[in-house]
Amino acid sequence: MFSVEVRNRMMIAHSLPDPFFGPAQNLHGATFVVDVAFFREELTEQNVVVDIGAALDVLGKTLAPLGYQNLDALPQFKGQLTTTEFLCKYVFDRIADAARSGALGGDGKTLSRIRVTLSETDLARASYEGPIGG
Amino acid sequence: MFSVEVRNRMMIAHSLPDPFFGPAQNLHGATFVVDVAFFREELTEQNVVVDIGAALDVLGKTLAPLGYQNLDALPQFKGQLTTTEFLCKYVFDRIADAARSGALGGDGKTLSRIRVTLSETDLARASYEGPIGG
Amino acid sequence: MFSVEVRNRMMIAHSLPDPFFGPAQNLHGATFVVDVAFFREELTEQNVVVDIGAALDVLGKTLAPLGYQNLDALPQFKGQLTTTEFLCKYVFDRIADAARSGALGGDGKTLSRIRVTLSETDLARASYEGPIGG
Amino acid sequence: MFSVEVRNRMMIAHSLPDPFFGPAQNLHGATFVVDVAFFREELTEQNVVVDIGAALDVLGKTLAPLGYQNLDALPQFKGQLTTTEFLCKYVFDRIADAARSGALGGDGKTLSRIRVTLSETDLARASYEGPIGG
Amino acid sequence: MFSVEVRNRMMIAHSLPDPFFGPAQNLHGATFVVDVAFFREELTEQNVVVDIGAALDVLGKTLAPLGYQNLDALPQFKGQLTTTEFLCKYVFDRIADAARSGALGGDGKTLSRIRVTLSETDLARASYEGPIGG
Amino acid sequence: MFSVEVRNRMMIAHSLPDPFFGPAQNLHGATFVVDVAFFREELTEQNVVVDIGAALDVLGKTLAPLGYQNLDALPQFKGQLTTTEFLCKYVFDRIADAARSGALGGDGKTLSRIRVTLSETDLARASYEGPIGG
Repeated sequence: MFSVEVRNRMMIAHSLPDPFFGPAQNLHGATFVVDVAFFREELTEQNVVVDIGAALDVLGKTLAPLGYQNLDALPQFKGQLTTTEFLCKYVFDRIADAARSGALGGDGKTLSRIRVTLSETDLARASYEGPIGG
Repeated sequence: MFSVEVRNRMMIAHSLPDPFFGPAQNLHGATFVVDVAFFREELTEQNVVVDIGAALDVLGKTLAPLGYQNLDALPQFKGQLTTTEFLCKYVFDRIADAARSGALGGDGKTLSRIRVTLSETDLARASYEGPIGG
Repeated sequence: MFSVEVRNRMMIAHSLPDPFFGPAQNLHGATFVVDVAFFREELTEQNVVVDIGAALDVLGKTLAPLGYQNLDALPQFKGQLTTTEFLCKYVFDRIADAARSGALGGDGKTLSRIRVTLSETDLARASYEGPIGG
Repeated sequence: MFSVEVRNRMMIAHSLPDPFFGPAQNLHGATFVVDVAFFREELTEQNVVVDIGAALDVLGKTLAPLGYQNLDALPQFKGQLTTTEFLCKYVFDRIADAARSGALGGDGKTLSRIRVTLSETDLARASYEGPIGG
Repeated sequence: MFSVEVRNRMMIAHSLPDPFFGPAQNLHGATFVVDVAFFREELTEQNVVVDIGAALDVLGKTLAPLGYQNLDALPQFKGQLTTTEFLCKYVFDRIADAARSGALGGDGKTLSRIRVTLSETDLARASYEGPIGG
Repeated sequence: MFSVEVRNRMMIAHSLPDPFFGPAQNLHGATFVVDVAFFREELTEQNVVVDIGAALDVLGKTLAPLGYQNLDALPQFKGQLTTTEFLCKYVFDRIADAARSGALGGDGKTLSRIRVTLSETDLARASYEGPIGG
């Protein structure tokens, strides 16, 4: 199995309003360093998993509406606990949509899996990995 | 599949008394940077894999009896070659026990897998990954 | 010149309400990885610059009131643009106070300089370095 | 499943002569930081996956013919697009050959899988993982 | 003294045609991760050393003509040994010019110092630091 | 001012037998990642601060007698508290001797300064910087 993994980042505010989260119930924030890995069994005709430039471009466009935002105020997150894990899945769904729609080039439609990792500090990170099919 | 991974560290002395290990047969030591990843198919009601605070707490308590110790002198390692790989499994077993006993919260009992990675230098690391079931 | 540098981190929300900052005028947030370096010309009787444990403890206590907070709502930052640079100096002043007051041990009073570095993303960081005297 | 992962690096020139690659069609170059992970279900008699020293040695010998070279001029790459993904598989094949031939010691013949990761910048990397059997 | 440091990267080919360089006399290449630190005694009215966005923009424009190039073929490097150290100074001169010309904003003209660091592998890097005045 | 910085590492056991060090009074150990920076005002005829290969070689030879050792048992450290800071100075003195003796090449004799940094964990490191003259 081959993979290619690319990186971007976003700085957001949010709160986690459930007693489970202790001090993180407060409005606070995070820098999320976001790594997206694309998996493919066999390389394309150009010997790639996916065009790295296109992958970086799709990732940048995916994160742009979230960067420098308070996630608590965004309609798509209303009523959601925007944990690091949840955000991994949110980014995964958008990247998988982009892949299936051809935004990663024609070969992007035939990727097998995607993994999204969000590092929230030097000590903690989360990921979601799943098949691209939809 | 979702994951959450947390980090801690320990500084220990040990020797590897088998000719296989060449100069590492000597009493020497290591800083092990320890990463523990927890895996779960679906998030809990709070949109998490596991409480990161509880995970860091359990990891800290797991490493505390080893930190600043000479592993050669600890009864639990008597007659064992305490390689990095062996220590990964040792930490894994303790973390899995803690998960099954509820030390990670009730949802910790239903984690699917755990992976423990020990980095011994900037050039080498080992890991053990397995199901939590016991 | 000798130095010792220790690390901690904090997750905060804030806004930078000046048109100079473009999208960062919005309420957003950051993970700041905080490194504090202590400098001394000659080592103490114990061959140290400063007790690393005490340094980590003082750093943790310095960051605790800021962690999981919205800096815009804290009285000490009222009317201030809480840029990364500004926060470096804010942390510096508290650590220098702690050193002069003996919180780093008696030898902490005779440190020559301190440098505080806050990394806000994988691509950008700021620092403040100055003499401890005061 | 246990793993051990070791690191080395190489500095090479190459071009990617296909319009797909945009500016990377030019003769340019890269530092590839190369991580090779070895996987085994059960540890050997010495409690290892593989001898780390032997693994580092095999990796060094694998990269030596490529280091400080223009890949476009090497006969083994004639007519190939030497993408990062392609090079992962190239290194994988050589390491797997070495394992099967006993260059990693007798236990190296019974490894289950190998994963080769090449990081080309701080923002992008590729990998190939597969069974060692051949 | 305050600083702000930003990062970018470039992938280039070159050779070092002097027997001093051993195998690096060959045409080979490198990924250079480029960090540029800006120093200022006192913060500006907006509590910054320099606008991070402007700094990243100037750095990107400085590296663009070098990225994906064979430095041996560029007229500005004719007859030069393009060592990592030399390239640090080359980038420094262009960034310092940009600062003095106002490309970093009006406050960029009054920076005190700049430091450029190029990391060529995980094991080696070079830097040049100097006053901006000129 | 130009610099070049190179990296190596060593794994050692030691104890710090003074009540000041709390649990680190025990026999324990560390992986020290060792970075050595060489400083020079003007580049040599080959546009370098120092030959990186020679620098790596000198660093490797400096650390070799310490690697896989119990520092408590080495005669050169008898009666010394082998703190990270102390070891920085110890490595500095050996590297400076090598430079003055020509082991870094003729140009190594005219370096201005050297800085040695030992990272003991992901959270703590020490350094010593001084002039090479002697």
